[in-house]
Amino acid sequence: MSLLVVGSVALDTVQTPFGEAADAIGGSGVFFASAASLLHPVQLVGVVGDDYPMQALEKLRERGVDIEGVEKARGESFRWKGKYSYDLQSRETLETRLGVFAHFQPKIPDKYRNAEWVFLGNIDPELQLSVLDQIRKPKLVACDTMNYWISSKRDVLLQLLRHIDVLMVNDAEARELSGDWNVYRAARWILSRGPKRVVIKQGVYGAVLVEGEHIFYVPAFPLEKVFDPTGAGDAFAGGFMAHLARSDDLSPQNLKRAMVFGAVMGSFAVEDFSINRLTAIGPADVTARARAFQDLVHFDAEPKYFDHPPKAGR
Amino acid sequence: MSLLVVGSVALDTVQTPFGEAADAIGGSGVFFASAASLLHPVQLVGVVGDDYPMQALEKLRERGVDIEGVEKARGESFRWKGKYSYDLQSRETLETRLGVFAHFQPKIPDKYRNAEWVFLGNIDPELQLSVLDQIRKPKLVACDTMNYWISSKRDVLLQLLRHIDVLMVNDAEARELSGDWNVYRAARWILSRGPKRVVIKQGVYGAVLVEGEHIFYVPAFPLEKVFDPTGAGDAFAGGFMAHLARSDDLSPQNLKRAMVFGAVMGSFAVEDFSINRLTAIGPADVTARARAFQDLVHFDAEPKYFDHPPKAGR
Repeated sequence: MSLLVVGSVALDTVQTPFGEAADAIGGSGVFFASAASLLHPVQLVGVVGDDYPMQALEKLRERGVDIEGVEKARGESFRWKGKYSYDLQSRETLETRLGVFAHFQPKIPDKYRNAEWVFLGNIDPELQLSVLDQIRKPKLVACDTMNYWISSKRDVLLQLLRHIDVLMVNDAEARELSGDWNVYRAARWILSRGPKRVVIKQGVYGAVLVEGEHIFYVPAFPLEKVFDPTGAGDAFAGGFMAHLARSDDLSPQNLKRAMVFGAVMGSFAVEDFSINRLTAIGPADVTARARAFQDLVHFDAEPKYFDHPPKAGR
Repeated sequence: MSLLVVGSVALDTVQTPFGEAADAIGGSGVFFASAASLLHPVQLVGVVGDDYPMQALEKLRERGVDIEGVEKARGESFRWKGKYSYDLQSRETLETRLGVFAHFQPKIPDKYRNAEWVFLGNIDPELQLSVLDQIRKPKLVACDTMNYWISSKRDVLLQLLRHIDVLMVNDAEARELSGDWNVYRAARWILSRGPKRVVIKQGVYGAVLVEGEHIFYVPAFPLEKVFDPTGAGDAFAGGFMAHLARSDDLSPQNLKRAMVFGAVMGSFAVEDFSINRLTAIGPADVTARARAFQDLVHFDAEPKYFDHPPKAGR
């Protein structure tokens, strides 16, 4: 079951209270692929300039990422520079240099056009639509977006929503898109615009999946040290989609598992700069952390307390 | 297994984006007792002025709250007036009139001194200590506090921590007390000061229990309409403590259940002004919502994904 991601392949310069990384590999496509490839092979489509350290992507290829879809264009690679607040809860963009990304027109290689599981990273919704035109018969399409597109290309984004299965956004984006502060009402609004499911990521608090009347909540894994939040949402998407692709199962129970694997990948992503942690671990680490989520949230609903009113007559 | 709460018995004037309630009954003791009495009898100790609408407390007495410990003093009752932001995520205190609460010296009636389960609502930590001096042999003491005491009576509060079993605070309080932004490190700091367990409430995101190396997370119940957050934390404490009291079981599994019943009560508390919702429901509503938490967080950890690394050799 082939899994395709279209997203940015970038060089990030990140300042956190714990240090700084300069021109580290990043971008939505790279974070997604780094996480997803721990569970399932991935096909990556993006664009880099002639200054991109291709040997860094080699590391991903060894882990099961097909990088033939990464186009090499003349010019500078996409660069993002940001600085996080002391509590890592907010960040300021210091510089964005689009470089070759400014003229990116995703061309899906013919061998990827049968992809069944597709993730559209955060790029211009017009490009996201153009990707869908090139995919023959996807089984599930998930999509991210951001505040910039919500305000500047709202109509195109609403058109896109009619063609995707899962919107994955953070709480601020869900609020801005729907105009509603309450995330559950925001989710319902989004579902009314097309997607069958919506995943709302809430950073350090976890993420929620809404599908019709079903709601599933997965907290963020409890970490005493969060190093760099960059890419956590894309790593989440990678875990979520890779689990669906490897299991080929869209049952409600399996979507819950996909949420857990998403949360697992998000938690690894934030433990170091760039994709350093995601590429330092293996599938056994993923499995162990997924299992730890059970202890974190499961409780034993003892029938005497959960099935019968404890006092009669009230 | 008797359950005692010492806390404020107040009159709240609350403005939310959805309306206003004037001089509605409230206070930590009242919210706690309203929630707890849905599961277990409660003994309430507090103080009111001669202007307090005692018939409102009668409603609680009918539900199993022993209000003989509520002292009637000459003067005005404690009044709090606050206004919530449009998103209910912050509030401004418009007025605090301590009235008879300014000279409150909790006197535990002799028949309450054998209480086994004790909750110390948010009052001066010196008074919280004086309550403990009056209890013969409690099985478990839980305690709330607030930023005001953390900054103005830090030493007394630290002394108190050595005598309690569970500190229940919100995330901002945990951070201020420990000086650490990360709630899990803050929890570890608090545990090093005495309590065996700490519960950190995170409002709309849920609450976390930390006991040694064990961490349990319960999300807030997904509500599309939150009406008035006042008292949610005390209602949470009421559900938590009442479940422990009725079950007389401090096993890790049962503490998780207590967290769920806490979250259930917190979710009911916010659905209307004052204790209106908590006194409109019965135990069957509590049980049904507790059961709904299972669907919200439980996932089936299919062995093929959770027990074996999906790919070998990495």
